[in-house]
Amino acid sequence: MAVNLHPPENLLPIPGVELGTAAAGIRYQGRDDLLLMRFSEATVGAAVFTQNAFVAAPVVISRDRFAANPNVGAVLVNSGNANAGTGQPGYQAALGSGLAIAESLAINSEQVWLASTGVIGECLPLEPVKNAMSEVIADLQADHWARAAQAIMTTDSVAKGMSLSVEIDGVEVTVTGIAKGAGMIRPDMATMLAFVATDAPVGAATLQRMIQRVNADSFSCISVDGDTSTNDSFFLFATGQASIAELQDDSPQLAVLEAAVYKVCQHLALSIVRDGEGASHVVDIQVEAAASVDEARMVADTIAHSPLVKTAIFASDPNWGRILAAVGRSGIPQLEVSQVELWLDDVRVLINGAVDPAYQEAMGQAVVNRDEYAIRVVLGRGDSQAHVWTCDMGHEYVRINADYRS
Amino acid sequence: MAVNLHPPENLLPIPGVELGTAAAGIRYQGRDDLLLMRFSEATVGAAVFTQNAFVAAPVVISRDRFAANPNVGAVLVNSGNANAGTGQPGYQAALGSGLAIAESLAINSEQVWLASTGVIGECLPLEPVKNAMSEVIADLQADHWARAAQAIMTTDSVAKGMSLSVEIDGVEVTVTGIAKGAGMIRPDMATMLAFVATDAPVGAATLQRMIQRVNADSFSCISVDGDTSTNDSFFLFATGQASIAELQDDSPQLAVLEAAVYKVCQHLALSIVRDGEGASHVVDIQVEAAASVDEARMVADTIAHSPLVKTAIFASDPNWGRILAAVGRSGIPQLEVSQVELWLDDVRVLINGAVDPAYQEAMGQAVVNRDEYAIRVVLGRGDSQAHVWTCDMGHEYVRINADYRS
Repeated sequence: MAVNLHPPENLLPIPGVELGTAAAGIRYQGRDDLLLMRFSEATVGAAVFTQNAFVAAPVVISRDRFAANPNVGAVLVNSGNANAGTGQPGYQAALGSGLAIAESLAINSEQVWLASTGVIGECLPLEPVKNAMSEVIADLQADHWARAAQAIMTTDSVAKGMSLSVEIDGVEVTVTGIAKGAGMIRPDMATMLAFVATDAPVGAATLQRMIQRVNADSFSCISVDGDTSTNDSFFLFATGQASIAELQDDSPQLAVLEAAVYKVCQHLALSIVRDGEGASHVVDIQVEAAASVDEARMVADTIAHSPLVKTAIFASDPNWGRILAAVGRSGIPQLEVSQVELWLDDVRVLINGAVDPAYQEAMGQAVVNRDEYAIRVVLGRGDSQAHVWTCDMGHEYVRINADYRS
Repeated sequence: MAVNLHPPENLLPIPGVELGTAAAGIRYQGRDDLLLMRFSEATVGAAVFTQNAFVAAPVVISRDRFAANPNVGAVLVNSGNANAGTGQPGYQAALGSGLAIAESLAINSEQVWLASTGVIGECLPLEPVKNAMSEVIADLQADHWARAAQAIMTTDSVAKGMSLSVEIDGVEVTVTGIAKGAGMIRPDMATMLAFVATDAPVGAATLQRMIQRVNADSFSCISVDGDTSTNDSFFLFATGQASIAELQDDSPQLAVLEAAVYKVCQHLALSIVRDGEGASHVVDIQVEAAASVDEARMVADTIAHSPLVKTAIFASDPNWGRILAAVGRSGIPQLEVSQVELWLDDVRVLINGAVDPAYQEAMGQAVVNRDEYAIRVVLGRGDSQAHVWTCDMGHEYVRINADYRS
């Protein structure tokens, strides 16, 4: 059911990054569920984590380790088990999995970061992870990005990844990223994991500021069902293997790298929406002429999270009344409905808060029949804007989420 | 699919209220879609309206007329067309329908209140309403509450109503109410119309304060899908035909009447949830030990609106991880997850933010197999509490909302 989404075709290796996968049997049978990323010395990492108050054990550990030292040695990721809501036993299991990797790789366990995704509330079983340790290490290769993208999938129907090369000071620099996520997705952030790496050398503080800027305009602009996860993590690694001078905030070349990272992350974020559980349409909710970015975002989120809007998108029904009702209840103060315009792509549906006299249902119908289109709301209150990519909610969403554990 | 919901059996007439219905053919064919309520002289009305910024024409008119004069002569209600988002033409059509009634009944048109429910964005067709005028007036009877409840239905599967009699100063006083609503329901308020009447004499200002108290604890505590409507209206009428002294704020008997009104409204509100589009379970989301009522409500609403929680309820899946994730993202500041308890009815699932050692999945499964149960979250932050009744979200919800206009 994914919308215009295909598996990544050519994921380029990043000098300084090796990836190994294994079928540990944590929950799934007959498929890889464990990913190890090993980094060359002096690799720095940046990270953004879920803002959910209930954070999973691996997030607690990664957050602490990242805060103490951005020099990362390895990342261990498992699918099938989120290890969230599992208290001390879950925390100990996560610590144990990291320790096993650190011992096998002969690195400091404080340099092992962790990520988990899957069912909440069940403690990570440590034995299967330990048993798969030698297999996952033996599998380490620079060109294993594609199988890495598959190993981290849960309800995803398609693996997600992208590579991009740019030239900086005459040297080719590469950015490769993979991500997983299809449900429990909403801004700030999503049940999503994303791992993006570059061989460019970037100062740790500069890299952290970059990930925050990029995240704000990629993974934080997507919504499948308005639910956030206990496990969301987005990591950006810079191995520094490319032969250029280290990029800092004031390096003119930083913008070139950041544009590439942004393109990769925007592709990954949009891939998550395209693979939204049961999605048959992808819609860009654009709110313009708002008094502030916050209020633009509030309106975009309210539309994106409305089950009535999402079922209408699913049904290819140009039911603009539901969009209007969502704008009206979004909570922005003293909304002058007589100033509001609503567009479906290039078709103006409402002007001055009422139906455009030139609008005919067939015009709206033609737009909502498309598998991708924009819903654009012009508030007439100022110059700010925001947007959210979302997908529809149909029978498949219910089927997937009603059947996920059974 | 409605949960434990049956048509009202014995709706008692209210002296001073007559009801007539007619099949005007506004949208539906072969069923009543028009309701006229005529009140005896000196009847006072109180009202609560939607807080959506986009309000329908009938709401604008009723709100203005109610504010100017609580003495109500008649209420005209139609189903099938919400007359919302219809600008000046819709406003003129609503005015015209009220004027036609006022002329036919020989009352002041300013004393005619209006309510509409149905599809948004299509102007109310005036001719069918005018053509049905004589039929609806000829049908006026004191014992037509049950057919009135049917005439106002849209996606409702069961008509909703309740009567209650109480004794005040040795005189029997009656409260009868009807309501409609099954989707686009959420606190503050819902796509719902409710009309409740009593023959008790009540001062207008006292009646308005009563409706606000009752509403806060009935219609404002329900959520089907988090969407609010452009048309929500809740009216409370007091005809004053019962032979007791007029009730004022300081009347000791006021509490007796209010308790009856509250019971009727609570029944109607719960009936709307029980008839939630596609509902197979009704759940009372209770949040306790919060630092404030607002924060308790915020947590309850976040749980009630989570598509992941609602699909788990539909699937009878004790997936408490999704509830936990919803609590975690509800936005309350500095939540100490180690203080949180979660209960499913009388089964404690979480204690100190992690799984209760005594909890076993079969215990939770037994609760969520029930068609009605409570999800109780104890935050450990204070003494405040709030609750929201909600229903699950399953295939029927999608089917109903994807097919509604087609």
